[in-house]
Amino acid sequence: MASKLWEKNFEINKEIERFTVGSDREMDLYLAKYDVMGSMAHIIMLESIGLLGRDELPRLLTELRDIYDTCERGEFVIEDGVEDVHSQVELMLTRRLGDMGKKIHSGRSRNDQVLVDLKLFTRHELKEVALAVVKLFDELIAKSDRYNNVLMPGYTHLQVAMPSSFGLWFGAHAESLADDMLFLSAAYRMTNRNPLGSAAGYGSSFPLDREMTTRLLGFESMDYNVVYAQMGRGKTERNVAFAMASVAGTLSKLAFDACLFNSQNFSFVSLPKECTTGSSIMPHKKNPDVFELIRAKSNKLQALPQQIQLIMNNLPTGYFRDLQIIKEVFLPAFTELKDCLAMAAWIISRIEVNEHILDNPIYDPMFSVEEVNRLAASGMPFRDAYKTVGLEIEEGRFVPDKNICHTHAGSIGNLCNDRITQMMGTTMDSFGFDAVEKAEKELLDRARP
Amino acid sequence: MASKLWEKNFEINKEIERFTVGSDREMDLYLAKYDVMGSMAHIIMLESIGLLGRDELPRLLTELRDIYDTCERGEFVIEDGVEDVHSQVELMLTRRLGDMGKKIHSGRSRNDQVLVDLKLFTRHELKEVALAVVKLFDELIAKSDRYNNVLMPGYTHLQVAMPSSFGLWFGAHAESLADDMLFLSAAYRMTNRNPLGSAAGYGSSFPLDREMTTRLLGFESMDYNVVYAQMGRGKTERNVAFAMASVAGTLSKLAFDACLFNSQNFSFVSLPKECTTGSSIMPHKKNPDVFELIRAKSNKLQALPQQIQLIMNNLPTGYFRDLQIIKEVFLPAFTELKDCLAMAAWIISRIEVNEHILDNPIYDPMFSVEEVNRLAASGMPFRDAYKTVGLEIEEGRFVPDKNICHTHAGSIGNLCNDRITQMMGTTMDSFGFDAVEKAEKELLDRARP
Amino acid sequence: MASKLWEKNFEINKEIERFTVGSDREMDLYLAKYDVMGSMAHIIMLESIGLLGRDELPRLLTELRDIYDTCERGEFVIEDGVEDVHSQVELMLTRRLGDMGKKIHSGRSRNDQVLVDLKLFTRHELKEVALAVVKLFDELIAKSDRYNNVLMPGYTHLQVAMPSSFGLWFGAHAESLADDMLFLSAAYRMTNRNPLGSAAGYGSSFPLDREMTTRLLGFESMDYNVVYAQMGRGKTERNVAFAMASVAGTLSKLAFDACLFNSQNFSFVSLPKECTTGSSIMPHKKNPDVFELIRAKSNKLQALPQQIQLIMNNLPTGYFRDLQIIKEVFLPAFTELKDCLAMAAWIISRIEVNEHILDNPIYDPMFSVEEVNRLAASGMPFRDAYKTVGLEIEEGRFVPDKNICHTHAGSIGNLCNDRITQMMGTTMDSFGFDAVEKAEKELLDRARP
Amino acid sequence: MASKLWEKNFEINKEIERFTVGSDREMDLYLAKYDVMGSMAHIIMLESIGLLGRDELPRLLTELRDIYDTCERGEFVIEDGVEDVHSQVELMLTRRLGDMGKKIHSGRSRNDQVLVDLKLFTRHELKEVALAVVKLFDELIAKSDRYNNVLMPGYTHLQVAMPSSFGLWFGAHAESLADDMLFLSAAYRMTNRNPLGSAAGYGSSFPLDREMTTRLLGFESMDYNVVYAQMGRGKTERNVAFAMASVAGTLSKLAFDACLFNSQNFSFVSLPKECTTGSSIMPHKKNPDVFELIRAKSNKLQALPQQIQLIMNNLPTGYFRDLQIIKEVFLPAFTELKDCLAMAAWIISRIEVNEHILDNPIYDPMFSVEEVNRLAASGMPFRDAYKTVGLEIEEGRFVPDKNICHTHAGSIGNLCNDRITQMMGTTMDSFGFDAVEKAEKELLDRARP
Repeated sequence: MASKLWEKNFEINKEIERFTVGSDREMDLYLAKYDVMGSMAHIIMLESIGLLGRDELPRLLTELRDIYDTCERGEFVIEDGVEDVHSQVELMLTRRLGDMGKKIHSGRSRNDQVLVDLKLFTRHELKEVALAVVKLFDELIAKSDRYNNVLMPGYTHLQVAMPSSFGLWFGAHAESLADDMLFLSAAYRMTNRNPLGSAAGYGSSFPLDREMTTRLLGFESMDYNVVYAQMGRGKTERNVAFAMASVAGTLSKLAFDACLFNSQNFSFVSLPKECTTGSSIMPHKKNPDVFELIRAKSNKLQALPQQIQLIMNNLPTGYFRDLQIIKEVFLPAFTELKDCLAMAAWIISRIEVNEHILDNPIYDPMFSVEEVNRLAASGMPFRDAYKTVGLEIEEGRFVPDKNICHTHAGSIGNLCNDRITQMMGTTMDSFGFDAVEKAEKELLDRARP
Repeated sequence: MASKLWEKNFEINKEIERFTVGSDREMDLYLAKYDVMGSMAHIIMLESIGLLGRDELPRLLTELRDIYDTCERGEFVIEDGVEDVHSQVELMLTRRLGDMGKKIHSGRSRNDQVLVDLKLFTRHELKEVALAVVKLFDELIAKSDRYNNVLMPGYTHLQVAMPSSFGLWFGAHAESLADDMLFLSAAYRMTNRNPLGSAAGYGSSFPLDREMTTRLLGFESMDYNVVYAQMGRGKTERNVAFAMASVAGTLSKLAFDACLFNSQNFSFVSLPKECTTGSSIMPHKKNPDVFELIRAKSNKLQALPQQIQLIMNNLPTGYFRDLQIIKEVFLPAFTELKDCLAMAAWIISRIEVNEHILDNPIYDPMFSVEEVNRLAASGMPFRDAYKTVGLEIEEGRFVPDKNICHTHAGSIGNLCNDRITQMMGTTMDSFGFDAVEKAEKELLDRARP
Repeated sequence: MASKLWEKNFEINKEIERFTVGSDREMDLYLAKYDVMGSMAHIIMLESIGLLGRDELPRLLTELRDIYDTCERGEFVIEDGVEDVHSQVELMLTRRLGDMGKKIHSGRSRNDQVLVDLKLFTRHELKEVALAVVKLFDELIAKSDRYNNVLMPGYTHLQVAMPSSFGLWFGAHAESLADDMLFLSAAYRMTNRNPLGSAAGYGSSFPLDREMTTRLLGFESMDYNVVYAQMGRGKTERNVAFAMASVAGTLSKLAFDACLFNSQNFSFVSLPKECTTGSSIMPHKKNPDVFELIRAKSNKLQALPQQIQLIMNNLPTGYFRDLQIIKEVFLPAFTELKDCLAMAAWIISRIEVNEHILDNPIYDPMFSVEEVNRLAASGMPFRDAYKTVGLEIEEGRFVPDKNICHTHAGSIGNLCNDRITQMMGTTMDSFGFDAVEKAEKELLDRARP
Repeated sequence: MASKLWEKNFEINKEIERFTVGSDREMDLYLAKYDVMGSMAHIIMLESIGLLGRDELPRLLTELRDIYDTCERGEFVIEDGVEDVHSQVELMLTRRLGDMGKKIHSGRSRNDQVLVDLKLFTRHELKEVALAVVKLFDELIAKSDRYNNVLMPGYTHLQVAMPSSFGLWFGAHAESLADDMLFLSAAYRMTNRNPLGSAAGYGSSFPLDREMTTRLLGFESMDYNVVYAQMGRGKTERNVAFAMASVAGTLSKLAFDACLFNSQNFSFVSLPKECTTGSSIMPHKKNPDVFELIRAKSNKLQALPQQIQLIMNNLPTGYFRDLQIIKEVFLPAFTELKDCLAMAAWIISRIEVNEHILDNPIYDPMFSVEEVNRLAASGMPFRDAYKTVGLEIEEGRFVPDKNICHTHAGSIGNLCNDRITQMMGTTMDSFGFDAVEKAEKELLDRARP
């Protein structure tokens, strides 16, 4: 867990290795299968420009495919003393194929190898995040439809203000996710570009066919300028983190609301038992632990962009080892976000709402504006209507008519959930997941026996 | 400049007013003309649903158009004692039209009025930012094309590593802007949605025609759910700030590079005299003040999202006065970013590069990899080539051949600037500025005498 | 308000000036009187080492003192075309004394001049912040003492959990301020060091007597190493911002609680009418605008350290123009924080608490643990006591005994406010304000006719 | 590595457990021995107030001491199915002593148990950080003394500006650490306060002797108010993170300078071979990987305060599960910082400087100011001196006299390293480590057979 670095007599070389490797080998496990995929595309291209023998290609592909399958089975390991995923893959190849195994590195540098791994990994994870967002979206819309007509107080300044509905409340968070999806889509497009061929950030004297690897890996286009391809390291992560922070912001707000509404002072919602902790002596106590953790993890995710910014900011153009540290905070973030989304979806699917909130008279005054409007609509001058209702309230005579009738788009009576769902669908279509999936499948299939 | 609040005997009501108003009146000047435009669309709609007299509409429109023109001439002021832009506009209308002036507020709340102002303002500013980005992009591409063949050292770890070119360096920053534009476009789409009709965040009992105001104001669609429309306050600003931070990050890196390359230890570039400060006694000293300020302002802009996050995070659903403070940091940010972009574009248009950098022998070793590849290509086994060159360098016999020949896409010899420019064009088209401009013009024209 | 920079045909030199000056002249007004004070100390020292005539010193001191008084009266202005405060002071001196006026710059650079201004300004502001903190602290302790015995629910997870008291609630925020003061004191000590003599960051060949200026300006010691003195620019601001963020964090939490407790769903506190806004139609509505603004401004202040970090991070040693931008966000922050503290103190002095909260039966279950302890103390085995009470609650038979008796240090019955107050006093003493005040007074008095 | 949560058909209870436990069990290993120590103090106190049998105390102490020794040997594990460190310790005790083992929880809640663990852990880690800072400080001072007279260029705007020295450069970073220590000391004092007895944040009806546990655990004082004790969770971490960020800022700047000076464009320093990576074909290439990682990790640490802020901000008073997530980012941060400090100290102890930098004529002009001063000191009017030197430079006739003579405090010739060292010593004394160590030793010794 801890190092001995700050004690006397440490062995410097071992300590330097520990310090420089850091969590890199652990992080590289996230990247392994994408590293293999990148190598497959690279060598197919190498063969096409004559830098790899026609007979060597299938043998290398077969072994790479085998390693890919090892990754898929969760059995890929980086052996002791092996520095990173690239070295491990090469080691496995040379064990099986001898020096031929080293040829996967021709015309490449470790820099563009990591770049392509990060792009492929991130592309995949963004897709999974998007799907998890849709899942939560669907649950929110379902609950919004179901509780379409159940009123709840609407607050401003946390003061009881106007009638609202659970339909609106659930639907609002859903629409927020639909907006977040626009950023996920933009981040996806930035990610979905091929950096391969940029080598150490300055290109190569080999006549690499970058169009070909772009096509093979299903990238929408390439990071053209090789200096920019390298500059994308850190920048891609930061911008993807922006998009994730947008989703996390929505989750955090949903969780905050739910925790508040779960308090005895509100009692608006009832969370599934599995997601709360309590006390046998205080049966009323239903601590919303899961939503609190969703909130905290989402808030932590909202700090991710700024973490990345502080690491990469004010570094001149070109690779620096600093970029390695971004992996530590970036790679695990997807699992955290997906977990939060899945947990939230599960809770929302089982959350129950209190249909009788408004029996509590503290909420009565929020119907006053409606009443004024009603009197005004029935002909009483607005100022008189206003005075009449104000007086009733002041004298405690006000009897709210809770049958409110809103009709315009997006209001209590007309949620427009179908329009919101359609908007979400359009954005989902814009990702182009199918083309990517097809390309990846074809690439992997090239290596089948 | 400072308040007397922490002194004895302050007058509390005055101090509270100063505290609560804060810089709000100054901020509202950014919003004035958009507030008027929002009101024009709103009353056209009110008339269509019978909530405003057919004869009242043209009179109100004429006066609003007059106030709009006042804003355009920079002559709009919020008078002493008037709280905000909405009150000022109403005051001007009632002075001219009596009680009829108050009707522009029917079916609206101050909340959705601010929301629509912010959306229209932000939409406009995002367009201007996008255009300023394109200007800088064009200058960078022009310089990239011009210095296509001028070599410079490429660094990794700030160590001389590989041949690069000014063509690549300028072009890389251009391509970075093309990527940033994807986020600006996503932010624009989130912004380009109509919140009008959400009232205080819970809708209205009036039969508002939100489709109509959406069309009149040129919004792509509406924020459907009224609770979400209110939730968009703060969220829109944060996400737009993300997009601006992406641009600012690119600017900051460009500025950092330029300041470094301007040091006597590099002497790669020569900045226009107007943009540097110096010392008569040290004629060599050319302090890159303008680029330093671009860098600092861009870095400050990169902190904007997190400022907004800290203000809005962990607030439950519904309006809070806290949101006012976001205006202080958000509204002026556009001018700052546009200034930085314009300054950078101007400098880049006049920057000169040192075409003889590589005469300095400290850069010779970077041609070693090229030499190895050349020997290998000419038949020598790679390891022998490697040893041969290594020995030459070690013994100081290495004579670099600086005629490098790269060919692949995005490399020194093949910058793909046309492809990058095309990509930028496609993204620019996706904004849909024309439709917005057309709608705004039509709306304003409705009020012409 | 906005620049014309991004329009065609702008005049570049004017625009560059506008861009580089930025808000610098406005910012320098914060520093004017400290600049004068720094010059006074500097020339007294110059005379002592023979770099200024014995007859020149009193004439310069008299004029500087006169300028100081102009600042004190709020009448100091930086004239059009004058770049900054240093140039303005020199201009005023040369107008009155001819070339002699320029001698105040001997052995100095603009760099250490700004440094000493910032240190003196910040030292003064930190003192004012500390005093404003004490003011709020005193009000909180007073309310804590007053409501010593008024119970309120204590929450965990926002679930009703245990009996607490208003005495505890007010007192907790007070103790939080006592802790914040430790950071203010550490920041004060960092600030209270003399950078004068560091010139452009590399010292001077003049035999400056830095001990003397340190003494004259009342600094506790000096920033010894001249390179470090310059390195302190940005770092001092960041660390002071850390200390301010700690205070702001306490304010934000106090404000959040108060806004929550002001909701009809809690109704724990009643805020002074002057600090809320309402609605004539909804007399129940008491929007806690002032506390919301305190919260938002405090949260904005909590983002200040990271803003400064992003600007200064990853810059190598030595002065950069970037540092100018820190002034824009740093200098106005003190007034904001002091305003928030003063407003909070005023509200706390007038806040009223609801002494009958616990009549609401939703809070009954929180007495269950007390009851179990009581039974256990009276001899019943703990498990039996637990079961007995649990059963009573389940069956609705539980009658809480609200006469709780806590005795240990820091509990409901024994708040230890005297100890906390003593702790605060000790920290306040550690600042050493008196010595500073004495030195400043002596310095200013040297210049009296 | 990843969860299955977002796949179909997951088992919800298992997934919820995984989600809520998170990395808590791993994190609790950091706290184990402090948890045991807290329990030892607690039960000694319990016995003193009659809540634990006189015969039970020694038996419990003996077993707790045994568990403490297990922790010290690194053999403490949290078994499968055991939730946290507190449960694990209790389990071990009850296995050995039966129900008596459960008595360690009387009069405590898990909340104040975690609080005291965090305080004791943090107190210990802050001490270790302080010692690691001193180690680096000593190496910097040693190098500053050694290279006292070796000149280097001093830069402003990264432009060659004035003569500086390696003595100044090393010494500046040392003095920066001396300032950072003030914040570490303030953070230590905030930490060194006893929260035990605050139970779930609202105290206890037991007559706990909090003075006694304060003394036994060596705390300087207690967090008096029990609500504040709980409020300290998150706040303590944030403020400690501020102090760590200050140290990290210094480290980052040192690393940035070193990486820059290691570039062939500067060649000011030579880093120990073990800390660089290279390329056999480019023997000139010495990538400063270790310093880059120090920089990146330090920059990541500078983001820690804001991460914590985003998690804890805008939460009302009282415990929330959110606070658990702070542990994930906070606890491992100390090891990271200590590693960076130790690595930096090791490199600084072996770094070599280039004593012949100034042979390069690009640095000549920086002696011009010195020359002007020299001529002026020898009687020539300043303006004439200025013109003379300016002309020499312009005509290329300027021959710099590199024998500069600075004398004032903190300048090239008079580094004041002894004064800086003394300042550091004074701050170190203020921590009071001895008293804490003595108390901890006495507490542990109470449990010896």
